[in-house]
Amino acid sequence: MSAVSGLVDLHHHGDRDTAPGLVDLAVNVRLPAPPPWLADVVADSLRDLGRYPDPTPATLAIARRHGVDPACVLPTAGGAEAFTLVARAVPGADPVVVHPQFTEPEAALIAAGRAVSRHVLRREDGFRLDPAAFKPRGEHAGADLVVVGNPTNPTGVLHRADDLRALRRPGRVVVVDEAFMDAVPGEPESLVAPDLDGVLVIRSLTKTWGLAGLRAGYVVGDPALVARLRAVQPPWSVSSPAVAATVACVSARAVAEAEAAALAYAADRDVLVRELAAAGLTTAAPSHAPFVLVDTSPLGTGSVREDLARVGFAVRRGETFPGLGPTWVRMAVRGPETSRAVVAALADLRRRRRVA
Amino acid sequence: MSAVSGLVDLHHHGDRDTAPGLVDLAVNVRLPAPPPWLADVVADSLRDLGRYPDPTPATLAIARRHGVDPACVLPTAGGAEAFTLVARAVPGADPVVVHPQFTEPEAALIAAGRAVSRHVLRREDGFRLDPAAFKPRGEHAGADLVVVGNPTNPTGVLHRADDLRALRRPGRVVVVDEAFMDAVPGEPESLVAPDLDGVLVIRSLTKTWGLAGLRAGYVVGDPALVARLRAVQPPWSVSSPAVAATVACVSARAVAEAEAAALAYAADRDVLVRELAAAGLTTAAPSHAPFVLVDTSPLGTGSVREDLARVGFAVRRGETFPGLGPTWVRMAVRGPETSRAVVAALADLRRRRRVA
Repeated sequence: MSAVSGLVDLHHHGDRDTAPGLVDLAVNVRLPAPPPWLADVVADSLRDLGRYPDPTPATLAIARRHGVDPACVLPTAGGAEAFTLVARAVPGADPVVVHPQFTEPEAALIAAGRAVSRHVLRREDGFRLDPAAFKPRGEHAGADLVVVGNPTNPTGVLHRADDLRALRRPGRVVVVDEAFMDAVPGEPESLVAPDLDGVLVIRSLTKTWGLAGLRAGYVVGDPALVARLRAVQPPWSVSSPAVAATVACVSARAVAEAEAAALAYAADRDVLVRELAAAGLTTAAPSHAPFVLVDTSPLGTGSVREDLARVGFAVRRGETFPGLGPTWVRMAVRGPETSRAVVAALADLRRRRRVA
Repeated sequence: MSAVSGLVDLHHHGDRDTAPGLVDLAVNVRLPAPPPWLADVVADSLRDLGRYPDPTPATLAIARRHGVDPACVLPTAGGAEAFTLVARAVPGADPVVVHPQFTEPEAALIAAGRAVSRHVLRREDGFRLDPAAFKPRGEHAGADLVVVGNPTNPTGVLHRADDLRALRRPGRVVVVDEAFMDAVPGEPESLVAPDLDGVLVIRSLTKTWGLAGLRAGYVVGDPALVARLRAVQPPWSVSSPAVAATVACVSARAVAEAEAAALAYAADRDVLVRELAAAGLTTAAPSHAPFVLVDTSPLGTGSVREDLARVGFAVRRGETFPGLGPTWVRMAVRGPETSRAVVAALADLRRRRRVA
């Protein structure tokens, strides 16, 4: 994989910014492994590994969880497969990706041979989307496929559902990457709703449930568009353990547990942001995600990533996100102790740099 | 998935021809679940599910097992993903699929929007490939992408490696589906060799190891072609449990166990073929695979599948394979007792039909 676009490696992800022995704030996963009740579900599924996988139970469970018709649902081998299916099967002569955001959707479009335009949000606007750019006479009036993240990785910005719905128009498909939506208490701005016309929502079970290694996610959207994705999905794409995990993770019990985790995230994030502020550091915008994007420019023009690694902390570099540079780093929200420790390391770095 | 081509549902597979309660001779998997040592490997991998998968250990282990450079290797989420990658990334204006064979390669090409020609082998020729058809002045002289199965599903025919190598010419890619090659003692006709110019070999771990639910396979081939596949493979496509299983299944211990299983298959297949012959039934050709294709035309013009299901046996219908009709059924090789029982059921069916 070597989609390098606009001098940015679109396939660079947080897993490459961490290393054994470092406190990992680079990778956006909540748990190092699934909780015991979920691990048991996955382990139980191994008994049946000789049979080909059947995604039907996952499809039905996802439909129930979101109150939509099963025709609106497609389980996928993680969000990454969903982006590939979108890139291959959703038509559109003028696809536009809203940046900064997770880079795989654009990489998948490029791999599918499509010419992608970027709509780069600015810090001055709080990295917030203004639908006017996509309206008639707007910069991207001609966009017929728009890809946007909500809440956005790496900025943490939670766009208003109304703003995203305002992007819709006949002949345009709006793809919303909601990989981190289950970490937003109450999911108030999700586009998963009875009205899915022209919309594809991509969800992940990876981050909240410690399942990054298993590849489990899904699409909820306009049934005509979902049918297009289904038509190009390789058969048996979602493994039996992933089907079992999906069924478990959209159960009422799991949704309640995710909601509790989302509330805990919010509290932990407040601590991190307060600590950063006390050290004179700001974030890109108020974050609604389980991570924050930190402006380290008060510490100098380069990246603090390697200096932080030297003292034991892995953070996600900002410069591989279109629209950002090396003075931005993304930090996963961890417990208060870790937050205090990493901010102390940043403050120490600042002192040492001032002396030098 | 609805690739219906030439009035044949290319997405029909053996898993749809069986049902709970039936003795399953429809699905070509050796084991209902992985053996305990392999199940332990998969279960151990669950500890690490919170991390994104890294295919490197699988790539290196596959390269070691086959004595090729890692650049020639791509682990995939089963053979099905490999066919999709081939369909998307291997160029060719005139792809030709040799039939009857496993239908997913053609379905994947069609899903990728490509016009596919068929080269249908005939019973009179023992369903054996004559490379002359692909030589200058042959019927498919212009083919620049040829897909062939070896040993072939569903005929069981093992083409000679030399005949397959003879298909190669500059500007043509030869894709060999070797999903069942590890069930052929010694793998004498495999195209996995130091000379991989213009060749892509697709292998599966699913059938021999009871891993159909996990999605584990790989490609070995021309490094320039493998690089093309890698460029369009979604990131993290092979799950961590599948990576762990792949490493285990290409170990010397596993290869030896597969070889022993292949020898046992050969003995069990001899019993099945003898029993069929004693009942006046022949197979399409001498089978080298863990299944045989049975000519049931002596029992009448329709399919015996439903009648067999009524007395407890599931067999794979022939009519969804291009070039075959309903009087062909594929039967997986099972133990002698099962073989005798299913042939007795066929003989009984024949008697009852004669009376009626």
